[in-house]
Amino acid sequence: MRGFCGKYLLVDLESGSMEERSVGEDVFRKYVGGAGLGAYLMLKEFDPLVDPLSPGAPLMFLDGPLTGTNFPGSGRSSVVALSPLTGLWGECNVGGAFGAAMKLAGLDGVVLTGKAERPVYLWIDGGKAELRDASHLWGLDTYATNERLEEELRGDGGLVRTMQIGPAGEKGVRFANIVNEMGSVAGRCGLGAVMGSKNLKAIAVRGGGKMGYAHPERAREVRKAITQKLENHLLAQTLHEMGTNGALDTGMLSGDIPIRNWSVGEWMEALDTLNSFYYNDHILVKTVGCYACTVRCKRVVRVEEGPYSMEEHAGPEYETVCMMGTNLLNPSLEAVAKANDLCNRLGMDTIAMGSVIALLMEAQERGLLSPSETGLDFSWGNMETALEAIRLTAAREGFGDRMSRGSRALAGELGAPELAVTVRGLDFPAHDPRGFHGYGLGYAVGARGACHLNTTNLLVEGGMASWPEIGLKGPYKGMTSKGKAELTWKCLSVGQLFNSLCMCEFIGAFLSLNDQVEMMRAATGFDWTLEELMECGWRIWYLKRHILNLRGSGRNDDVLPPKALTPTREGTNAGSVPDMELMLGEFYRLAGLDEEGRVPPEKLDIDP
Amino acid sequence: MRGFCGKYLLVDLESGSMEERSVGEDVFRKYVGGAGLGAYLMLKEFDPLVDPLSPGAPLMFLDGPLTGTNFPGSGRSSVVALSPLTGLWGECNVGGAFGAAMKLAGLDGVVLTGKAERPVYLWIDGGKAELRDASHLWGLDTYATNERLEEELRGDGGLVRTMQIGPAGEKGVRFANIVNEMGSVAGRCGLGAVMGSKNLKAIAVRGGGKMGYAHPERAREVRKAITQKLENHLLAQTLHEMGTNGALDTGMLSGDIPIRNWSVGEWMEALDTLNSFYYNDHILVKTVGCYACTVRCKRVVRVEEGPYSMEEHAGPEYETVCMMGTNLLNPSLEAVAKANDLCNRLGMDTIAMGSVIALLMEAQERGLLSPSETGLDFSWGNMETALEAIRLTAAREGFGDRMSRGSRALAGELGAPELAVTVRGLDFPAHDPRGFHGYGLGYAVGARGACHLNTTNLLVEGGMASWPEIGLKGPYKGMTSKGKAELTWKCLSVGQLFNSLCMCEFIGAFLSLNDQVEMMRAATGFDWTLEELMECGWRIWYLKRHILNLRGSGRNDDVLPPKALTPTREGTNAGSVPDMELMLGEFYRLAGLDEEGRVPPEKLDIDP
Repeated sequence: MRGFCGKYLLVDLESGSMEERSVGEDVFRKYVGGAGLGAYLMLKEFDPLVDPLSPGAPLMFLDGPLTGTNFPGSGRSSVVALSPLTGLWGECNVGGAFGAAMKLAGLDGVVLTGKAERPVYLWIDGGKAELRDASHLWGLDTYATNERLEEELRGDGGLVRTMQIGPAGEKGVRFANIVNEMGSVAGRCGLGAVMGSKNLKAIAVRGGGKMGYAHPERAREVRKAITQKLENHLLAQTLHEMGTNGALDTGMLSGDIPIRNWSVGEWMEALDTLNSFYYNDHILVKTVGCYACTVRCKRVVRVEEGPYSMEEHAGPEYETVCMMGTNLLNPSLEAVAKANDLCNRLGMDTIAMGSVIALLMEAQERGLLSPSETGLDFSWGNMETALEAIRLTAAREGFGDRMSRGSRALAGELGAPELAVTVRGLDFPAHDPRGFHGYGLGYAVGARGACHLNTTNLLVEGGMASWPEIGLKGPYKGMTSKGKAELTWKCLSVGQLFNSLCMCEFIGAFLSLNDQVEMMRAATGFDWTLEELMECGWRIWYLKRHILNLRGSGRNDDVLPPKALTPTREGTNAGSVPDMELMLGEFYRLAGLDEEGRVPPEKLDIDP
Repeated sequence: MRGFCGKYLLVDLESGSMEERSVGEDVFRKYVGGAGLGAYLMLKEFDPLVDPLSPGAPLMFLDGPLTGTNFPGSGRSSVVALSPLTGLWGECNVGGAFGAAMKLAGLDGVVLTGKAERPVYLWIDGGKAELRDASHLWGLDTYATNERLEEELRGDGGLVRTMQIGPAGEKGVRFANIVNEMGSVAGRCGLGAVMGSKNLKAIAVRGGGKMGYAHPERAREVRKAITQKLENHLLAQTLHEMGTNGALDTGMLSGDIPIRNWSVGEWMEALDTLNSFYYNDHILVKTVGCYACTVRCKRVVRVEEGPYSMEEHAGPEYETVCMMGTNLLNPSLEAVAKANDLCNRLGMDTIAMGSVIALLMEAQERGLLSPSETGLDFSWGNMETALEAIRLTAAREGFGDRMSRGSRALAGELGAPELAVTVRGLDFPAHDPRGFHGYGLGYAVGARGACHLNTTNLLVEGGMASWPEIGLKGPYKGMTSKGKAELTWKCLSVGQLFNSLCMCEFIGAFLSLNDQVEMMRAATGFDWTLEELMECGWRIWYLKRHILNLRGSGRNDDVLPPKALTPTREGTNAGSVPDMELMLGEFYRLAGLDEEGRVPPEKLDIDP
């Protein structure tokens, strides 16, 4: 083994057959791994035009060449499928230790097609794999599923790592997620519903193998150097001490936070009870980290009493604090923690769920629907309603069935599409393009829709990363659209790389891109240069964009929703909106897209 | 030479005699250099009880062991004297290249006493020194003085570096400064008035020697490593791109900025025309750097037309943008640049001058004095008045004579001492202890009064630096007083070290303290450990504190002014004030001060 194993397990859930498929070195060299490999396989091995919830649609769990190494930030993997929420390309990047276990079991990935007759789970133990009955797990929440699987499978061997869906995925909620044992989630695009549509409750893996490096000695040196660098890095230290929610204060102050369904520019008072100082003082129990990571930014929390009491488990990240906090006018971090816990257990994306609740609060205020229609009082900040909405949505019960289709569909039904804040049907993450114009372009051209991971604009434009080696030195002025197309074009490639390597975006931000090159070379033995890897990034994006094109999405969908183009009246970003025409024009020239936003044939680098 | 030369030039301006005085290695090992050496000499060689403006008072220009090396951030030196503004210990730390030239001329410093009969300047050319007539320079502004001296002295040799006073120093303005050729200033404590009181217009130095290192090979390695570190450091890059005024945005958003004579907590609109994006777009001509520095944060600016037009020269730093901008309710950066240029040319501290203007604006508003008494309309934001006030103060003309005594004296005369915002008579720099409580303690116990350099609280508590090697890991919550005494006690030692080494605080923030140790060891050959250097820092602070005690200042002066203890009603720091009793109590225990704030004999480490 040298970074990659050269094979994935192909499972047909309908027949129960399994086979190992090999992948050539040339594929890794060109498409890297992770989501890049997923895009390649989607076009090469499968029909990219099937219905996302049909048996023929593939569901892929894929590692990158760094997954399973001991480089900090490499403990991640990709989940790839067509998205039932957007109807387009879907991918997630997930932390924890599942990806490492898969690699240590000798696989670069597991790809599943078909639909099992009854609920099953896939058990991979070192070199052996089998499908097992999951009827005793069906209906269980994600954490309970993990506990049962661990009990069942632990035996005498090593740790068992799992990815599972909750009731929401079973029931086909369009934004259902897939959750691992630590409460890390493959959150977006509704890939949990794809899993549910296949009657696949979980995948459990025990690794057992030993990670190989093409250059083990060099790998040791590189690891030592980057670990040292992270130890001395102020933002890495801050991320450890404050978690991702450490971004809330500066975000509020730089015009980055969604408030009141993206309608208000500032809510300073909320910081008192939502920021990380409050978090650390009131709900934090301990910090934990993904596989091999030395930064350890994840939070375990507990709320001891009151209406939002919750047992010790994964705490809310920054995104959730905004989408279940500020964007609902809810100042209670305890309520956010409870909402997060419920969504994790039931198996739903907190961003999409929060967006649905926010739009309903605004809809009720505007008189578009009444408490008697929904059965709930969607007043701003009413977290009792929010929690009940989460429960009803996961069960698709009553009004929950309508909520389970996601904000774009729901707003359309209400005759108020302007209340949904999505690109391509994927809800905005908690970063406001009115404060940072380049984010707007990133959302518009991101392969999976409005997304904080597909492009790394957020890191560079938001001031967390600086990569002078590709001409991105910064700092950048957020509220200008000039120059952002070039920034986005470069960040886009880096984003594809991070999600293909698979490297944590935070760690990626704290290191130089040359560090990434060094890690990749040590792991794979390829003599990759930074230029060649950047070409890989763009190559991968073109594949994904081509899949969008094939499914009818191009220039027509490269648009921001009305909320993002309406200036706020208060706060740092008051009066500012991104100039999409300017940025898109420049971006199209840089990317060489035609006027309908299609990838030209000469850019599409995949064998027919 | 190995970091230090082991000698300083002692000049008696009255008799014109000069002699080289040697300093033993043991002194450097204990008191390091720069301001530390100054404190030692003040107690050991001079009478620390004389009137600051009397001939017997010494005026010292002192290098540290890093000054003149090629380590980034080392191009600084100290100026030490008793302060005519506070009547207590006075010191400044100044950038540029003057200190390096002094070292390369074979001196660790120049110490002057007495008063020349007529205006003179001191000319040091390599190994030779002479006093020359300065009657043709008397009355010239600082930049013109520099130009004349360069013309006169340039000859065939290398660059001439100068430190000079302007008309304000000649006339004894209590906050007159000393300015070098690049417009870097030894700004605070009125040391320009000390220079003027001695009839000393300038010191000009041409180095010519070669810097020595105890371990030249090691020095090369250390320099390479830290230069590389700075190149990859996000905040160092930001400092280069945005200058020190890059702190304005985050400062506004974290409750750090003085507004309306420290009475208002937030003024967001001012950012539009005062922040560094505006600065870079509208007035910046180029960036320059101090001797040996690779970061280059200094700004050269020009205002082409209008009432604030100014020729190309040094631009305002962050402190000045606040004290001449937000604190006067003035949103015009061009007006700030003009005020800065005037103060630099006339030779006055922009912080103290801005504070005087702010207090007069508030006094007029309160009806404590009228335009007919001052001859000027001190309405908020009236920058025509501000510029005229600067001119009158430097000339001590009309009401300018009263202004020239500084804000504490002026507020006292007006019967409104609460309008002055000082500790020990030194005006607050532009960092608000209501937003960062530890700053309040740092101001209270800083050796020269309210000061942003004596302690490095600002770096650590403000989130620019993290020094886990001394247990300061952060991040820290600004608006709490808990734990800040320990933080301040440690930062205090580091601050003394930086001003003794002499190391730029910004570069110091971006590097680890172990990097400082490595630089010091390579330069001096001493086998200093971090622990030993920290002891040096505290030792130096005790000497300075002892000088305060000798001049009657102890617990009685460790107090914040009323403005800093009155909460604002708006912005991030609304409702918050530091708990001085708590912090001072803890600090006294850590420092071992007695209840009157005196240094106990066993802590005073200086031979009798």
